[in-house]
Amino acid sequence: MNYPVGIKKIVKATKDHSNINYGNRGMTLESEINLSNEYYQEIDKAYIYKKPTPIKITKVDYPSRDKAVIKEAFFTVPSTTDYNGIYKGKYIDFEAKETRSRTSFTLSNIHPHQINHLNNVERHGGVAFIIVRFTTLNETYLLSNEKLQEFINNSDKKSIPISYFKKEARLLSDGYRPRIDYLRVVDLLIGGI
Amino acid sequence: MNYPVGIKKIVKATKDHSNINYGNRGMTLESEINLSNEYYQEIDKAYIYKKPTPIKITKVDYPSRDKAVIKEAFFTVPSTTDYNGIYKGKYIDFEAKETRSRTSFTLSNIHPHQINHLNNVERHGGVAFIIVRFTTLNETYLLSNEKLQEFINNSDKKSIPISYFKKEARLLSDGYRPRIDYLRVVDLLIGGI
Repeated sequence: MNYPVGIKKIVKATKDHSNINYGNRGMTLESEINLSNEYYQEIDKAYIYKKPTPIKITKVDYPSRDKAVIKEAFFTVPSTTDYNGIYKGKYIDFEAKETRSRTSFTLSNIHPHQINHLNNVERHGGVAFIIVRFTTLNETYLLSNEKLQEFINNSDKKSIPISYFKKEARLLSDGYRPRIDYLRVVDLLIGGI
Repeated sequence: MNYPVGIKKIVKATKDHSNINYGNRGMTLESEINLSNEYYQEIDKAYIYKKPTPIKITKVDYPSRDKAVIKEAFFTVPSTTDYNGIYKGKYIDFEAKETRSRTSFTLSNIHPHQINHLNNVERHGGVAFIIVRFTTLNETYLLSNEKLQEFINNSDKKSIPISYFKKEARLLSDGYRPRIDYLRVVDLLIGGI
């Protein structure tokens, strides 16, 4: 929400070498999660926010007393995940990623310290997970941190095959309000199902 | 942590017209809280982070494949508080501010939607508070959201007198590690004291 959509797409394009043209599906996963979070806030259900993009500012101009213009800054590696907040008294923490692959999700899309962070959250009593959208398939999954770590600990693979998502994650369906009702799945995680 | 200390000082200087010269006390409150949070992480006690400064990016250059340089961006109003995280299974949320005043803390230093946010957090079972440092007096207080709202609801004053902090807040003492052991006071809040 803090920068034009185009910027993120260009930055991400350097990481994803897939040639599949998946066309315009409409909104990005990020936009849909942000809208869902706004809806949850409106109905006083949960307060979950996307963190601002971390940057390192190196030059600032002050053309007038109250205005500051950043003239040079760089994107930096995030130390935590993108989303966190509170729901039913629980600390909620997750990362959301899109992939154009039809077959797997490459683990290098999530920084190692983000994976550690999810573990820390869970160990301290929070609810941690990732949301992954396979844009070409138009399928969005919520994978609990528990199942994410289980895969990492029991496999040398650098990507999680979609079969693992089909088996161990929950498919999130599209809706109007909220666009993605991921808290319905969080309810299951809290309930220990 | 994401921008040189000087930048924030200049931006804040436009808000604070006090002429008191408080000299160099050493670290800013923000730096001390960040160090304390790093220490809490090291000893696996809590995972609390400062959110990146929210900005709106309007121009980005791509001098090479992997490098993006932000060439124009603006500071935006934060929608939440600066710090949040997890401690003892609880969602923790707070804002930290310095003032050079010796007598009171001006409420306009905290945006109305941040005050709402603290209320939302508390209502949903989280632990919400503000940390205010009176730099000239070298006194740092932790004021619970409950007591903050109590003041706002029962007073027309635009600033909280230091007497209110002395009576209703907890004084935070300086230490080595952590620099500011604010979780000791959070323990009291969790315990309902």
